[in-house]
Amino acid sequence: MTKRVKVAVLGATGAVGQRFIELLENHPVFQVSELVASERSASKTYGEAANWILASPMPKAARDREVRLATDDLDADVCFSAIPSGIAGKVETDLAARGYKVFSNAKDHRMDADVPLIIPEVNPEHAALVERQRTDGFIVTNGNCVGIPLTMALKPLHDKWGVERVNVVSFQAVSGAGYPGVPSLDILGNVIPYIGNEEEKVETEPLKMLGKLGSRGVVPAPIAISATCVRVPVEEGHSLAAHVQLKKKAKSEDVAALMAAWRGRPQELKLPSAPRSPLVVRFEANRPQPRRDILEGNGMAVSVGRVRADPLASVKFFLTSANTIRGAAGCSILNAELFHAEGRL
Amino acid sequence: MTKRVKVAVLGATGAVGQRFIELLENHPVFQVSELVASERSASKTYGEAANWILASPMPKAARDREVRLATDDLDADVCFSAIPSGIAGKVETDLAARGYKVFSNAKDHRMDADVPLIIPEVNPEHAALVERQRTDGFIVTNGNCVGIPLTMALKPLHDKWGVERVNVVSFQAVSGAGYPGVPSLDILGNVIPYIGNEEEKVETEPLKMLGKLGSRGVVPAPIAISATCVRVPVEEGHSLAAHVQLKKKAKSEDVAALMAAWRGRPQELKLPSAPRSPLVVRFEANRPQPRRDILEGNGMAVSVGRVRADPLASVKFFLTSANTIRGAAGCSILNAELFHAEGRL
Amino acid sequence: MTKRVKVAVLGATGAVGQRFIELLENHPVFQVSELVASERSASKTYGEAANWILASPMPKAARDREVRLATDDLDADVCFSAIPSGIAGKVETDLAARGYKVFSNAKDHRMDADVPLIIPEVNPEHAALVERQRTDGFIVTNGNCVGIPLTMALKPLHDKWGVERVNVVSFQAVSGAGYPGVPSLDILGNVIPYIGNEEEKVETEPLKMLGKLGSRGVVPAPIAISATCVRVPVEEGHSLAAHVQLKKKAKSEDVAALMAAWRGRPQELKLPSAPRSPLVVRFEANRPQPRRDILEGNGMAVSVGRVRADPLASVKFFLTSANTIRGAAGCSILNAELFHAEGRL
Amino acid sequence: MTKRVKVAVLGATGAVGQRFIELLENHPVFQVSELVASERSASKTYGEAANWILASPMPKAARDREVRLATDDLDADVCFSAIPSGIAGKVETDLAARGYKVFSNAKDHRMDADVPLIIPEVNPEHAALVERQRTDGFIVTNGNCVGIPLTMALKPLHDKWGVERVNVVSFQAVSGAGYPGVPSLDILGNVIPYIGNEEEKVETEPLKMLGKLGSRGVVPAPIAISATCVRVPVEEGHSLAAHVQLKKKAKSEDVAALMAAWRGRPQELKLPSAPRSPLVVRFEANRPQPRRDILEGNGMAVSVGRVRADPLASVKFFLTSANTIRGAAGCSILNAELFHAEGRL
Repeated sequence: MTKRVKVAVLGATGAVGQRFIELLENHPVFQVSELVASERSASKTYGEAANWILASPMPKAARDREVRLATDDLDADVCFSAIPSGIAGKVETDLAARGYKVFSNAKDHRMDADVPLIIPEVNPEHAALVERQRTDGFIVTNGNCVGIPLTMALKPLHDKWGVERVNVVSFQAVSGAGYPGVPSLDILGNVIPYIGNEEEKVETEPLKMLGKLGSRGVVPAPIAISATCVRVPVEEGHSLAAHVQLKKKAKSEDVAALMAAWRGRPQELKLPSAPRSPLVVRFEANRPQPRRDILEGNGMAVSVGRVRADPLASVKFFLTSANTIRGAAGCSILNAELFHAEGRL
Repeated sequence: MTKRVKVAVLGATGAVGQRFIELLENHPVFQVSELVASERSASKTYGEAANWILASPMPKAARDREVRLATDDLDADVCFSAIPSGIAGKVETDLAARGYKVFSNAKDHRMDADVPLIIPEVNPEHAALVERQRTDGFIVTNGNCVGIPLTMALKPLHDKWGVERVNVVSFQAVSGAGYPGVPSLDILGNVIPYIGNEEEKVETEPLKMLGKLGSRGVVPAPIAISATCVRVPVEEGHSLAAHVQLKKKAKSEDVAALMAAWRGRPQELKLPSAPRSPLVVRFEANRPQPRRDILEGNGMAVSVGRVRADPLASVKFFLTSANTIRGAAGCSILNAELFHAEGRL
Repeated sequence: MTKRVKVAVLGATGAVGQRFIELLENHPVFQVSELVASERSASKTYGEAANWILASPMPKAARDREVRLATDDLDADVCFSAIPSGIAGKVETDLAARGYKVFSNAKDHRMDADVPLIIPEVNPEHAALVERQRTDGFIVTNGNCVGIPLTMALKPLHDKWGVERVNVVSFQAVSGAGYPGVPSLDILGNVIPYIGNEEEKVETEPLKMLGKLGSRGVVPAPIAISATCVRVPVEEGHSLAAHVQLKKKAKSEDVAALMAAWRGRPQELKLPSAPRSPLVVRFEANRPQPRRDILEGNGMAVSVGRVRADPLASVKFFLTSANTIRGAAGCSILNAELFHAEGRL
Repeated sequence: MTKRVKVAVLGATGAVGQRFIELLENHPVFQVSELVASERSASKTYGEAANWILASPMPKAARDREVRLATDDLDADVCFSAIPSGIAGKVETDLAARGYKVFSNAKDHRMDADVPLIIPEVNPEHAALVERQRTDGFIVTNGNCVGIPLTMALKPLHDKWGVERVNVVSFQAVSGAGYPGVPSLDILGNVIPYIGNEEEKVETEPLKMLGKLGSRGVVPAPIAISATCVRVPVEEGHSLAAHVQLKKKAKSEDVAALMAAWRGRPQELKLPSAPRSPLVVRFEANRPQPRRDILEGNGMAVSVGRVRADPLASVKFFLTSANTIRGAAGCSILNAELFHAEGRL
């Protein structure tokens, strides 16, 4: 094994931070060299500071590592940021200024003109945007956990037939709210028809990701999306129902076939975290289901099913995806793998 | 109290049958005089035959009553049918031929040309359709448990601005599948994106209910609906997200106000089961929720919230409603109360 | 209606505080005249300050009432305390010193020598303990939400045969942890075998409640209890399995019959919140169940079932009870009703 | 790889049958050569016959295999039986008579005098019992899914200090009831205090497993167990609270240390399915938990925690274990691995 790239995980004690640590254990390209959290955790060991909530055991290497602050001098080239939105913005700007290459889950910089918002299968060419950032380091972001799988499902359709309008309704797992997150008294046997700022993100971020990189930045794709975002009593796995109007006629069988055959740059480059098929199409009437299908491609594939004609629009389908893997930490890591493979690190 | 109308409950041992029995206990107009089920239960007492699954205790009067067959001579004028779809059709036709007035939850006759499909607040005038049935008795149906609340929410909008297109995605409780219904292994921590024949019903029945009664029957309303129907781990209470295109412009505040002010014939006639407001509009960001809001109006009101502008269409909203009350047994009873008040029994 | 006693609800914005407000709406003896909470809520209206989590709507009278501080001069004779344990102790002591009659759910004073720990059906005579408190007002407590139903089930057995040893394992609802309480990520599809300090309370409080009031205070009953307390994904309703060793032989049928026939002082005095039967004994193999049985006696009855011989001890049974009603606010209110009926207010 | 032993899976379409197929995929010793089910499935492919409910995908090799009947001539030496109890008895007797070596999960033969009831870590020496069966083949059974982890936890304690009395209360997952099994309407937000025949099994089977093999068969261990068995809304993972009276004094730290250090024959023989530690002892206050701990040792380790002094007895603890792996199919496979390693196949 060649020398691995040293990486820091920021927001390391939170739910997404934990997922980063889990996914980076034994990673062939990256090696966790720093765990960063807030004042409250700093100078404790990670084992003391973190309330580990994943089903897999806390990696030994993490357990004994001392937690650092983002303002410390970090022994790392790459920073994976799981810092809460709102706080992340300034911290990430500072890190980039100090020369770190930041791959962030936070929404703060996603819509900045010179910050790429990337899904490696969808818009790897947007990576070039970082060249416009006037800092030693840079910031790369990934989308929100609903927007990522939705955009992946739309991408091959948009390329072939043009996507015009999308009605999307989500069924979002509680892990998406972090920890402690959603109180059990609110969600047991219940659904909650509201997630703060979520619909705005779902209605805008896919347009940037499906947009074209021009000389003056990304021109958003001319698509209109309407979203309703709902929390459901599911531990992990965001699902969504999409009703899609295409610009040209397409049979639902052709839509399903195109999705199943779709491959992107990560598959071509054989990136370590790339699933064999980014979209796994199922034909059983009652699939996909979050509890049964989110582990497809180690949580990096999106499972799509019920691809069928829409009486109002062109086609409708249902999909499910691991929201803290493909929808968060895993997508960030795949972005960094892309940058590594393309010599941008 | 004047003499009450004798009623039989058919399919009495099932989940909806039980709800009929619960709602009819101490009813001011109807009195349960017969409990009807299949061969397997016949000639047992109801207490022996039924696995009572509701939270309220089984009414004493029901417990000791002997279960009868639909082919028996029934001491009742009205039959409430909770017979499973598929079986219900023939049984109900026979009962009507024998002179009984049948109010049915089953889908079998809903789309028959001379059978009214009624929500008393929405299309009470369709009751006249029964005059075209050439039998001593008649059959009246109510819609499917998603179609009923959706149609109620659309009715005032359709009357004022015209409804053109509706995208609807449902979050359906397990009680909608009856008992034993959905296996817990399938639904705990999961969502299931398929309910047999449900989307077809949701896409067609509202059109009949919102249609106009003409000399040659009901002319369906010229509305296009696209539905995705999903099961969620909720005990009782179907919710749905609707994105609605109106024919004329309307502000979302006006939509909310119109819904809140809407009243129908049951409210005018002060029918015993009529809620004060058929649509209860909520303004908190995170409501309505099934576990907290389905008992509005004793389960007969539909709770609507998140009424807001839709970037793709005119307006979008979220609603929740008690699927085995307003969405099934309660709607049937309200239909019968309407017929009684209008002298049609 | 004669003049009602004015009462303040302390800790009014919390989960138990809300239950107090709900149960006291339209109460024949008590009238809520003050709502008290912490600095954070003070001088807001209750409607602004409280995140109402119950299924019933917030009472109108509460909504517009200004929230007060416990240090304010309160226009009330009785204080119902739903203040969190740890904080409650000092506040309640102060209130009693200032002349208020405090009925508390908090554990802080439960084991104080001169503070009665009362279930009105079990040890109403302990009320006399308040006479030893050297303050103008007094403090009365009720037990923990597992200890209350356990003690109720043991009381008739202890009186007749003597209880010697009890092994008890609990299945506790998330509402017992208040709000926000248990994170959904911890409890969905899971059980948590630990609730802080709960086992200690369950092993000691019943002994005081079943003890004898002597000239030097309460002599605890000579019973040994071993408890394991476990959180389960249930919204409301604590259940428990008890394996009981009696001093004398008893057939399980006799145990069940004795429980079913048991009545206490509240039943004799016909207190407003008293259930007809404090213990409702069920004979179906699979009952009681929290979701189906906690509303017995409006949440004030304990449902007991599976009363059967124990191969190791005398008898075993399973019970369920509404933990925020009989196990908390409801028991406090019943205590105050007892004091009112006996002229102690 | 040497030639693998051909095995048939009986009851292959059921929940435990599916787990057998999953666990046997790529097994180093056994190779599935036959899938056997009832008339209803026979002569279909397994892919057509089975409603696959596990999260892992159905193995390709299984999908296309034709389902056979137990009465067919089976191309296999070993039969793993996941046949429902009640039906299994006769089928297994016939198979043994026809020369097959049957490893069964069903309860029918567990208590037969000449049939070993084995957990390889606990009583591997009972394997010799098969020599008393007067058939060409033989039958070996494993215990019920609660009895197995309980017996494993008791074994080292019994060997060192003697176990006298055990009070045990279970928290059982819905997967233990097979498919469709527990209706969701019964278990969402609920617990059910009854599982047919379960308590009898838990009170008797451990005594046989902890018993001594003598010249006249197994002499049950002189232990008294009292059980209450309860279903909870958990997908997979039975938990239990045990309060244990030992014959000699023991400190809880020593109990925990002994459990953690315990190893058995499978660990010594390095059987393919053997976990490194049969009992994984945890020291966090709130562990073990089924959702987080059942995958220890690939579902073959039992996680134990909260080992502490019992005020009534010697020690109490809480444990959790994968009920369809260690508690069912996995234990059967480990039994067969033991027989293979010891030359008994």
